[in-house]
Formats: sequence, structure tokens, C-alpha cells
Amino acid sequence: MPGDTRKQAARRLAIARGHLDSIRRALEDPDVYCLDVLQQLKAVQGALNGAATVVLRGHLQVHVTTAAARGDAADLVDELMDVLAAR
Amino acid sequence: MPGDTRKQAARRLAIARGHLDSIRRALEDPDVYCLDVLQQLKAVQGALNGAATVVLRGHLQVHVTTAAARGDAADLVDELMDVLAAR
Amino acid sequence: MPGDTRKQAARRLAIARGHLDSIRRALEDPDVYCLDVLQQLKAVQGALNGAATVVLRGHLQVHVTTAAARGDAADLVDELMDVLAAR
Amino acid sequence: MPGDTRKQAARRLAIARGHLDSIRRALEDPDVYCLDVLQQLKAVQGALNGAATVVLRGHLQVHVTTAAARGDAADLVDELMDVLAAR
Repeated sequence: MPGDTRKQAARRLAIARGHLDSIRRALEDPDVYCLDVLQQLKAVQGALNGAATVVLRGHLQVHVTTAAARGDAADLVDELMDVLAAR
Repeated sequence: MPGDTRKQAARRLAIARGHLDSIRRALEDPDVYCLDVLQQLKAVQGALNGAATVVLRGHLQVHVTTAAARGDAADLVDELMDVLAAR
Repeated sequence: MPGDTRKQAARRLAIARGHLDSIRRALEDPDVYCLDVLQQLKAVQGALNGAATVVLRGHLQVHVTTAAARGDAADLVDELMDVLAAR
Repeated sequence: MPGDTRKQAARRLAIARGHLDSIRRALEDPDVYCLDVLQQLKAVQGALNGAATVVLRGHLQVHVTTAAARGDAADLVDELMDVLAAR
């Protein structure tokens, strides 16, 4: 994975980590309101989606667009579709 | 778009259409239960996701894996990421 | 299901049906571009999500908020969570 | 938020944190493969979805099913729909 892709992804995961830790602290409070936690969980998911977008873009650029020339297009497409379909 | 991709996608959209029409008929009944409709909507979304998966796989195979050799890799990746990110 | 909920949901499903039919026509054209189809599929999914939102809101309003008074809160929550979790 | 809901949610967030930290370490390796990272991101998202499901269930049970008797059903439904719709 290219260096700038790793850096961008790592930065978004650091943001996600920060949100995650603040939610874990909030859950120690019996009076925490459910919807506040749900909203913060969405913020973590947003940061994770941001990281996934960066990594996917890098993968398409570096590995998928060059697959036909390399001769492994079918494998590359299969493994990418498997990951995209995974829940 | 390759013929078999179009055929597979069209077949799934025909399934989605059938679900959609049955939901529209169900909505004419005042006694229809909300969760039955929500469940059927999920079935339509499942069929649409199936069609989207077929089309995405075909696009990767035919257009994206050959992009570097063709010289338009950056454009191909940009337009694909835009569509994947769209809501 | 309340009349206005059914009407709103039916209207969005009519929009979804229109998009769906235009995609099915587009798939008859060998030169149709994959990403145009993916984008239109997103429009159908958007209309379906709109219908699902209307139905869910109606369900919460009419059935879920009254569940404790009726005495079937646990069942209502279980069945709703099952539908929300379904793929 | 009920104690057991907080405990269940916190446990899933601890799992998410563990996945997140291992991805951040993996991103320090120039040879990390994009799809491995994407797959691990899905695992984090799965754990977060698990936590969100637990919190949503608790919210429905404790706050939403009792709303009509309390007289704030419209507000409860509005705020829940806003959070569910948020990206």
C-alpha cells in the first residue's frame, strides 16, 4: 500500500479511536442517553468509512487498474468483490 | 456493458419489480402491517443490490482492470469512487 | 397502517418503479455504460429508503410508542429489531 | 441507559478497539495488503453495528415503548428518526 494512502487511513483511524474512547467513557455514566451514544457511534462509522474509502481508492489505483496488463484481472476482481460483499 | 452482465442485471431487476408491485398492492389495504411492508422493501433492496453487484463486477472486469494499459486509470478510479460514495 | 403513511410510501414506490423501468430499458442497449446504471440503481435505492423511512416512522408512532400501555413492548421491540437487522 | 445495555455495548466497543489498534499497527508496514485492511475495517464496523444494535434495542424498550403513556411520543419518534437517518 502506498505511503500516503497508509498515512491518510491511519489519520482517520486515529479520529475513529478518539470517538470510540469517548463513547466508552460515556458508557460508564448511568445517565448517558441512548441516542447520544448512537449518534457518536455514527461518527466512528463515518471515520471508518473515510479510511475504507482511502484504502479502496489506493487499491483500485495501484492493483486493479494494472491487473489486465499483469494477467491476474479475474483474481483481482473476485477478491475485491468478496471483500465488498462481506458484512 | 457485456451481454451476460446486462442479462443477469435485468433478471434481478425483474425480481425487484415483482416485489415492488406486490408492495404497492399491499399498501392499498388499510390493514397492512408496517413491518410486513418493511420486510418486503428489504427484499426489493436485496434484489437491487444483486443487480448492482453484477454491474460493478462487469465494470471492474471490462473497464477498470484495463485502465492502466489504456492510460485513463485516474479518471476511471475517480468516477467509480464518486458513484460508490453517492447515496 | 395510517392512510397518509400508506399514501406517502406508495408515492415513493411509484418513483422507484419509474427509475427501475428506465434502467431495464437502458439495459437493452449494448452501449449502456455500467456506472450510469449503478448511479440509477442508487436513485431507486434512495426512493426505497424514503418509503422505508415513512413506514418505520408510522410504525414507531402508531405501534411502538403505545406498546408499554398495551403490554406487548417486548414482542414489538423484538420483531422490529429482527426486521431492522435483516439484509 | 440500563446497566446491562451499557455493559454489552462497552464489551463490543472493546472488541472494536482491539481490531482498530491492530489495523493501525498493520498500516505501519509498507507491505500491508489493501484488501486485508479493508476486511479488518469491516470487522470493526461489525462490532460497532453490534454495539449500536444493543443500544437501539435498549432505547426502544426503555424510552420509546413508554412514550405514549408519558405523552412525548412525537418528540421521541422525531429524534430517533433523525439519528437513524444520520450518516
